[in-house]
Amino acid sequence: MHDLIIIGGGPAGLTAGIYAVRYGLDTLVLEKNVIPGQISTADTVENYPGFSSISGMELMQKFRDHAEHTGVRIQSADVKIVRDEGNKKVVITDDGEYEALAVIIATGANPKRLGVPGEDKLLAKGVSYCATCDGPFFGGQEVIVVGGGESAVTDALILSGIASRVYVVHRRDELRACSILQKRAFGTENISFIWDTVVQEIKGDELVEKVVLKNMKTGELTEMNVDGIFIYVGINPNTTMVDVDKTDVGFIKTNDRMESSVRGIFAAGDCRRTSVWQVVTAVSDGAVAAISAHEYITSIKYDQ
Amino acid sequence: MHDLIIIGGGPAGLTAGIYAVRYGLDTLVLEKNVIPGQISTADTVENYPGFSSISGMELMQKFRDHAEHTGVRIQSADVKIVRDEGNKKVVITDDGEYEALAVIIATGANPKRLGVPGEDKLLAKGVSYCATCDGPFFGGQEVIVVGGGESAVTDALILSGIASRVYVVHRRDELRACSILQKRAFGTENISFIWDTVVQEIKGDELVEKVVLKNMKTGELTEMNVDGIFIYVGINPNTTMVDVDKTDVGFIKTNDRMESSVRGIFAAGDCRRTSVWQVVTAVSDGAVAAISAHEYITSIKYDQ
Repeated sequence: MHDLIIIGGGPAGLTAGIYAVRYGLDTLVLEKNVIPGQISTADTVENYPGFSSISGMELMQKFRDHAEHTGVRIQSADVKIVRDEGNKKVVITDDGEYEALAVIIATGANPKRLGVPGEDKLLAKGVSYCATCDGPFFGGQEVIVVGGGESAVTDALILSGIASRVYVVHRRDELRACSILQKRAFGTENISFIWDTVVQEIKGDELVEKVVLKNMKTGELTEMNVDGIFIYVGINPNTTMVDVDKTDVGFIKTNDRMESSVRGIFAAGDCRRTSVWQVVTAVSDGAVAAISAHEYITSIKYDQ
Repeated sequence: MHDLIIIGGGPAGLTAGIYAVRYGLDTLVLEKNVIPGQISTADTVENYPGFSSISGMELMQKFRDHAEHTGVRIQSADVKIVRDEGNKKVVITDDGEYEALAVIIATGANPKRLGVPGEDKLLAKGVSYCATCDGPFFGGQEVIVVGGGESAVTDALILSGIASRVYVVHRRDELRACSILQKRAFGTENISFIWDTVVQEIKGDELVEKVVLKNMKTGELTEMNVDGIFIYVGINPNTTMVDVDKTDVGFIKTNDRMESSVRGIFAAGDCRRTSVWQVVTAVSDGAVAAISAHEYITSIKYDQ
């Protein structure tokens, strides 16, 4: 039996691994993807302190090198179920079962795709899902924001301080975001709204050049030149394998010690309920989760 | 008037600066020390993901380079008072006054020194104030922990999983730490207790070699060979300049958005109430504080 199993080898999981190994815990990281971490899809990361500008892939590789250098064991496995048996947790994967005293879920989350032509091809080439991450690359340029909820309007406001003009493209004729955000967005000179409209295609060779918009009421198609497209149509946390308290859409609820509703199961990074999805917050979560897991494991070993 | 003034140029403050500038905020960082950040006193940092092993000084320089590269303005000034005037905050320094819509306090905290000969000279050469940070450098070695409170016993337990033997040196004949921690410590085979005793001197040439202990009851002096000494006699947050809700010892109370009890004043890093004092948590705090400050500043600009 291991002391600790960490599910997910992105920034949160690997940081938890580094901390756990430094505490002397017998630690195993399970990761299903060859290249883990939402961040590895980022073309350029300029907000992880210490690296002024680095590709997401390179940053992820540095995290992995660091973890391996510290002695973190990373194994390839797709976790299907985490079973709570009190002082023992059983992790069932496509490649056998593992047991540990404690488990940290660091499985991340994926933004929902629009599912239109050009979206995958131009990811990180003008297609983004996070204004805080990528907004600054569009200084003085024109961007569209797709969606009408809190995230869309929050990020439209962020972009309005950076881009020259922001068009919010929404399939309905009113926003879902709270009224205070709406008021700010409507009062911002360089934010415009394109109602009853969806994006049908994203075009561009090396970079996003234009989008094809479809008016849902008239069926009319128009092309529009843009430099960037920010998409907010939802986010899917990867948490179906574990039965703990979650939000409606599946984010794991934790306290500020990263404890879930089940003793000995912790969560860190984008898969937990938070309002900030950043590499810095993920690595912090990972460290805190490992510190809490170490304390929990110590309590199991000494208090019984 | 600036949008945002950040007080403190350590990991938390500089990360807040990077995020704020990327949001397009007019941001000023005020720092009183030439070399800021508690971390810059660390000989080697091995738990900031991305750098397997780096000196604290070098890491701090990388943060500073990154901040300056992003366009963060860092000015030398010793802040005396932060005055809240509602939608305006006035920052009074030894070198004039500054105004901003919002302020982030990122002034850090300093562990209390024992104040004995050898302590300053051997800092980071075997003298440490944080087992999570420096414990792993003492694998298989013998260390002493000075203190009897929660931090001392928590870190003694951490060290017991790494060092070969841990001696807890305490000036009284009982611990202040909670009973559950005491029970674990007393039940741990490689933790010993030296009661009624204080450290009178730390000796060593390049590295810590021995400590001089004094029994408070008998006055007897003894020398003891050790490889490391971990000191837990308190911690001083640098927060006297601001009037917000604080703990008894002065840590600023915040919610998880880093908001203090006063609108428009935020806190990040070691100066706020937290149970974890790490570079990863400080940079995360800084990012979250900047995100919250940006939202607050947007609200001031648009909601009035």
